[in-house]
Amino acid sequence: MSEAPDDTTPDHAVTGVLHPGDMGVTVAAACSGTVLWASEGRSAESCERAAGAGLTDAGDLASLVAAADIVISICPPHGAEALAATVADAGFAGCYVDANAVSPATVRRIAARFANFVDGSVIGPPAREPGTTRLYLAGPGAAGVAARFAGSLLDARVLDGGSIGAASALKMAYASWTKGTNALLVAVAAMAAAEGVSDDLTAEWGLSQHGLSQRLTYTAIRSAPKAWRWVGEMDEIADTFAAAGLPDGFHRAASEVFARLGEFKNSRSASVEQMLEALLNSPAAAEDAG
Amino acid sequence: MSEAPDDTTPDHAVTGVLHPGDMGVTVAAACSGTVLWASEGRSAESCERAAGAGLTDAGDLASLVAAADIVISICPPHGAEALAATVADAGFAGCYVDANAVSPATVRRIAARFANFVDGSVIGPPAREPGTTRLYLAGPGAAGVAARFAGSLLDARVLDGGSIGAASALKMAYASWTKGTNALLVAVAAMAAAEGVSDDLTAEWGLSQHGLSQRLTYTAIRSAPKAWRWVGEMDEIADTFAAAGLPDGFHRAASEVFARLGEFKNSRSASVEQMLEALLNSPAAAEDAG
Repeated sequence: MSEAPDDTTPDHAVTGVLHPGDMGVTVAAACSGTVLWASEGRSAESCERAAGAGLTDAGDLASLVAAADIVISICPPHGAEALAATVADAGFAGCYVDANAVSPATVRRIAARFANFVDGSVIGPPAREPGTTRLYLAGPGAAGVAARFAGSLLDARVLDGGSIGAASALKMAYASWTKGTNALLVAVAAMAAAEGVSDDLTAEWGLSQHGLSQRLTYTAIRSAPKAWRWVGEMDEIADTFAAAGLPDGFHRAASEVFARLGEFKNSRSASVEQMLEALLNSPAAAEDAG
Repeated sequence: MSEAPDDTTPDHAVTGVLHPGDMGVTVAAACSGTVLWASEGRSAESCERAAGAGLTDAGDLASLVAAADIVISICPPHGAEALAATVADAGFAGCYVDANAVSPATVRRIAARFANFVDGSVIGPPAREPGTTRLYLAGPGAAGVAARFAGSLLDARVLDGGSIGAASALKMAYASWTKGTNALLVAVAAMAAAEGVSDDLTAEWGLSQHGLSQRLTYTAIRSAPKAWRWVGEMDEIADTFAAAGLPDGFHRAASEVFARLGEFKNSRSASVEQMLEALLNSPAAAEDAG
């Protein structure tokens, strides 16, 4: 053979994904080569999801870390630093990709734990159709990570000239609008309900803010069950605003709104009425108004 | 004559409008009967605007108050209480309509100064075309006020069963979304600029948030010059949220954003770049980041 294949070419690549949840499993499924996950301590639902996506179970995190040359972290933002610490402490010597919704400052702290680090972020829903979901990557090793997703349902994009922090900053900016307006909309509706003008507001929205009442209903159905996961993300966004010298109140408030919706964590959906009641009748609400 | 017309029928009605600015002059022009304004202390621009709308100059506020049976207050929210106090102190005995963007609590304080009071609010742009602009009215005298606008460009609506505070609450809820999202959008763009990911955000918005970049440009052109007037309105909205036990941070932040745009008060418009620079380079920004 004129050229010996090295172990980082896609055919022989081994990528570890921590942890394949609803979003992570689609990232893992889009990755070429062998894709490992670690079943230890995960739910039966996770096992089923990973098996369905054709992932290989490494067993525990130590085995995954020993076998993989790239590890991609996809978890709720409040768990990102602890997960990175666990992987670093397990002696991982490959390229660590943090793809979570954390601030540039948080991602730089995580980066400091690894010799090879790529800053990543995912924008869009779980990647089940082409064109919906992008994995943004920044840092010296970004192209090598992106190569593993070539031709897949996940559109991996290297940020032009982006240093560590750029992919996270992009995610913070993007979600600060999408999730920030979700939280605001719920709070606006709760305020109208508290003042007894819900029907009047719905009527006026019907005249001049087309689609807003429908968006409120959709937020109850789709967002309320996920709100608990967004508390940490709103805190990371607020920190990012503060670091730029901008008012952080929008997302401190959004964090509080999502925290009050935490009770819908295990629900399939909520009604607008249930959602507004959770907002208005939380112990924090009574305290604020008192 | 079988029936003597009383002086409150539309034909003999005398309405005072304080003060006919860009919005107020269209409210005044839509009002039937004699419509007074008071030129004392007002700008040449106001005089021209009032004359153009066919308003009658009462001279000073005392003369207006003596002649009118309804006085409608339309002014920036931070001036609403002082204006009401001036009218009450001048001995006004008719029906006072506060149509400003103030909280239910503020409007109830204002109402306490008058024996006859109607809570009002205006939603929409200055009323120059049919169907764009509504004057919401609440309280026992609301129908009498609405009658003066029958068949006009201003759609006056009495809130069904609405007590004093309902029209103001509706305005607070409505503007908390429209102006709150304006402020958030500007802050998001400033955060992206501070982190060097503006172009990446614009590209992602082009893929998944249609019209948002255009809205940002439109906000710079149309909203930046008016931002100074919205500082007080955001404060009133934040107070309304707090009174309902809801997080007030969205609109405390929006107030700060609009305050930083105060320098565009006398501009015809701003560019996105100018607007973001004003946000990021304000003395408050340096302090927050420091």
